[in-house]
Amino acid sequence: MNGSLMTIVEAAAAIRAHKVSSRELVDESLKKIASANPKINAFITITPELARGRAAEMDAELARGFDRGPLHGIPIAHKDLVMTRGVRTTAGSKIFADFVPEADADVVVKLDDAGTVMVGKTNLHELAYGITSNNPHFGAVRNPWDLERITGGSSGGSGAALAAGLVFMATGTDTGGSIRIPSSFCGTVGLKPTYERVSRGGVIPLGLTLDHIGPMTRTVRDAAIAFHAMLGDPNGYVPPANPDIRGLRIGLPVNFYFDALDAEVAAAVRQAVQTAAALGARIIEVRVPNIDALNTVGRVLLLVEAVANLRPYLDRRADFGADVLALLDQGRLLSGADYVDAQRLRRIMIAEFSKFWTEVDCILTPATPTAAPKLGQTTIDVGGVTEDVRLATTRLMRGINVLGIPSLAMPCGFSASGLPLGMQLLGAPRAEDLLLRAGAAIEDALGLGDRLRGAAQLAN
Amino acid sequence: MNGSLMTIVEAAAAIRAHKVSSRELVDESLKKIASANPKINAFITITPELARGRAAEMDAELARGFDRGPLHGIPIAHKDLVMTRGVRTTAGSKIFADFVPEADADVVVKLDDAGTVMVGKTNLHELAYGITSNNPHFGAVRNPWDLERITGGSSGGSGAALAAGLVFMATGTDTGGSIRIPSSFCGTVGLKPTYERVSRGGVIPLGLTLDHIGPMTRTVRDAAIAFHAMLGDPNGYVPPANPDIRGLRIGLPVNFYFDALDAEVAAAVRQAVQTAAALGARIIEVRVPNIDALNTVGRVLLLVEAVANLRPYLDRRADFGADVLALLDQGRLLSGADYVDAQRLRRIMIAEFSKFWTEVDCILTPATPTAAPKLGQTTIDVGGVTEDVRLATTRLMRGINVLGIPSLAMPCGFSASGLPLGMQLLGAPRAEDLLLRAGAAIEDALGLGDRLRGAAQLAN
Repeated sequence: MNGSLMTIVEAAAAIRAHKVSSRELVDESLKKIASANPKINAFITITPELARGRAAEMDAELARGFDRGPLHGIPIAHKDLVMTRGVRTTAGSKIFADFVPEADADVVVKLDDAGTVMVGKTNLHELAYGITSNNPHFGAVRNPWDLERITGGSSGGSGAALAAGLVFMATGTDTGGSIRIPSSFCGTVGLKPTYERVSRGGVIPLGLTLDHIGPMTRTVRDAAIAFHAMLGDPNGYVPPANPDIRGLRIGLPVNFYFDALDAEVAAAVRQAVQTAAALGARIIEVRVPNIDALNTVGRVLLLVEAVANLRPYLDRRADFGADVLALLDQGRLLSGADYVDAQRLRRIMIAEFSKFWTEVDCILTPATPTAAPKLGQTTIDVGGVTEDVRLATTRLMRGINVLGIPSLAMPCGFSASGLPLGMQLLGAPRAEDLLLRAGAAIEDALGLGDRLRGAAQLAN
Repeated sequence: MNGSLMTIVEAAAAIRAHKVSSRELVDESLKKIASANPKINAFITITPELARGRAAEMDAELARGFDRGPLHGIPIAHKDLVMTRGVRTTAGSKIFADFVPEADADVVVKLDDAGTVMVGKTNLHELAYGITSNNPHFGAVRNPWDLERITGGSSGGSGAALAAGLVFMATGTDTGGSIRIPSSFCGTVGLKPTYERVSRGGVIPLGLTLDHIGPMTRTVRDAAIAFHAMLGDPNGYVPPANPDIRGLRIGLPVNFYFDALDAEVAAAVRQAVQTAAALGARIIEVRVPNIDALNTVGRVLLLVEAVANLRPYLDRRADFGADVLALLDQGRLLSGADYVDAQRLRRIMIAEFSKFWTEVDCILTPATPTAAPKLGQTTIDVGGVTEDVRLATTRLMRGINVLGIPSLAMPCGFSASGLPLGMQLLGAPRAEDLLLRAGAAIEDALGLGDRLRGAAQLAN
């Protein structure tokens, strides 16, 4: 059977029906990695021996009746920014190339407790500081949907591994879109939780007040399981079959760059909105506060916070990629007062944005304004305007990290050339379950499941 | 009668017993200000006409049965950092010397709603950025206990006005001790609430993440009334008669500079501890996390945040006092990354400190390591060591603003030369009522009330 293209929900049922064992799922995962990874470069480190031993343990636990829940025995991957005890954690950087942590990150502990089996560590944009995942030290991650295209980043390896069907779930981190951009470009699902809701302990930091960690999966329900496992309870909440979203107030922000989207993205997002409306949701047009200002604040904060984290290594200029070095050099020029000014504006914007949640229950927006660009491409056509790839791609993302609110990125269609297109659902602080419920309803109704499995064939 | 040496509790009863009217209390307050202010310089602006009109209104309200609670008709003062509609608000600065706000600060609105009558705006350290209240533009505030001594600052005018019996309550702000230092030096009571518990809206800012606003009064129960009025309910909580503190776990931090105190301060604080123990409190010796590091973090944060606030005026160098200018010049040298590093350390320290609140209910420490220094004095003898006045005076204060926890400063004794000495009670976030209850119990048992009224004679 093609085990690793099942969902977590399906695999958990198959394990309990004795149709498959954790060991078999892990073997299949490792076999596919061996075949696909030379093409897509999703993994920096593969841990077959650890994984097989752990899978055998998980099978033995189940055999004696100890059941950790739906993630028990499920092969997953950790972004190589997440510390794993005894397994090197490179952060995609030359500086950490030989760093072997002595302890697991908090999410690794939580996901271990839930019974997951790690098969390896995924590739990423250097130091998680960028969106191409074109890594100068460990090679570019390539998009399973089209090997000439990027996966987005920084959690590009996690997105590629999921799209290629190599694992059921992977951790991602998101400082300015790093979970949601690869989810959009790879046709997968990613949840950036509320700021500090999931512990960042043991994750190599990039931006003190912007870093988030969350799950990446192939379906919304799988994201719900993984998210709650990260919080300590894999059975915490899973959207039911046929989630009822009648009367749910979905805000459609008319000023959220809907005028600067690729036409195919705009059409796919409109389709998702119509789908939600057909399910009984109330679509309410809203005007959000100034997103340009929010993005500017986000850029100042990140430029400074990244320097604070990487300051001990700044004299090793040759060990950084050119793009990361340029950002660090910019960040060094900013004063303390510049940073505090940005934080002050941030407070005003958070207060403004918080007023929305009395008018609407969530907000539906595009995720990225285009499908995945080509590897090496620095500018991109967005609805007839030539734009910088980095700025265009983070435009619908970065401000959400400034606000710290949860965002669920999920596929909503395909381009004419067969590339997946993404949307995101935003909610009030701690409204993750509401977003997961709405997302599951839209996912079910869009019915893209079979087509989304397509990339796994391309990459294998 | 000597109305304004009553407590708020007593004055409220006297008003309702028709022994005194608001108008009489206000007239007495204005008369004393006219007599004392040339000596102590507690007020920058006096508003007799406004006050008399308002007092008449308050009397009329009571006459028709509309009772706003214990602060109804009570003469108070606002620190001149707190915006008052139509009444100039100088911030003790040449820059704001002619600034007449168009709206009241949030606390002014709340205290108006509670029925208070403002008689004027109190003097302060320039821009609230210092602890001497030796203001280069509006003159030094002088301590009613000894006119050659400072009141401390920055809310020095508020402390002096209370000690001299000019008002029943005054607002104070506290970014690194600015409520608690003048409370300690003036023999009055000051509550720095939990960060952001009392709205700072309409208070001219100094430090974005360090500024607090709170009440200054002559007794702990009066502070409770004023604090809850600032939250919107003057009847929210008042410690009862004979507050029961049996079993209350009071932490005594053995490493909180107890080795670097004036001997008389140390003795007075020990006396307060013994008093609490005699009332049945459990005294538990604790070791707090590194307070030196906490103070260093606080200094970096404030140096930078002050620059962010005052940046629009930095080219007007001649308009700043030398001490404030020096601090601003230091702050300009700090980078964004320096500031973020301090914020990162702060998070660690807040987490460390939060563990205390399972072991103890509150912590009792000295407030200032000495009694009030003399005006112009730059160094001071602290237990045999010569120290910088500013650094010594803020040493037990600044870190508390970094933590954002509540602190109640109150008198605990007198020096041989008759100067008041202060202590503070620290608690978990939002534990103000617990601190007020413990403080009232200690205040009752210490029985310093009569002696604390002594300064009013000296100044009048």
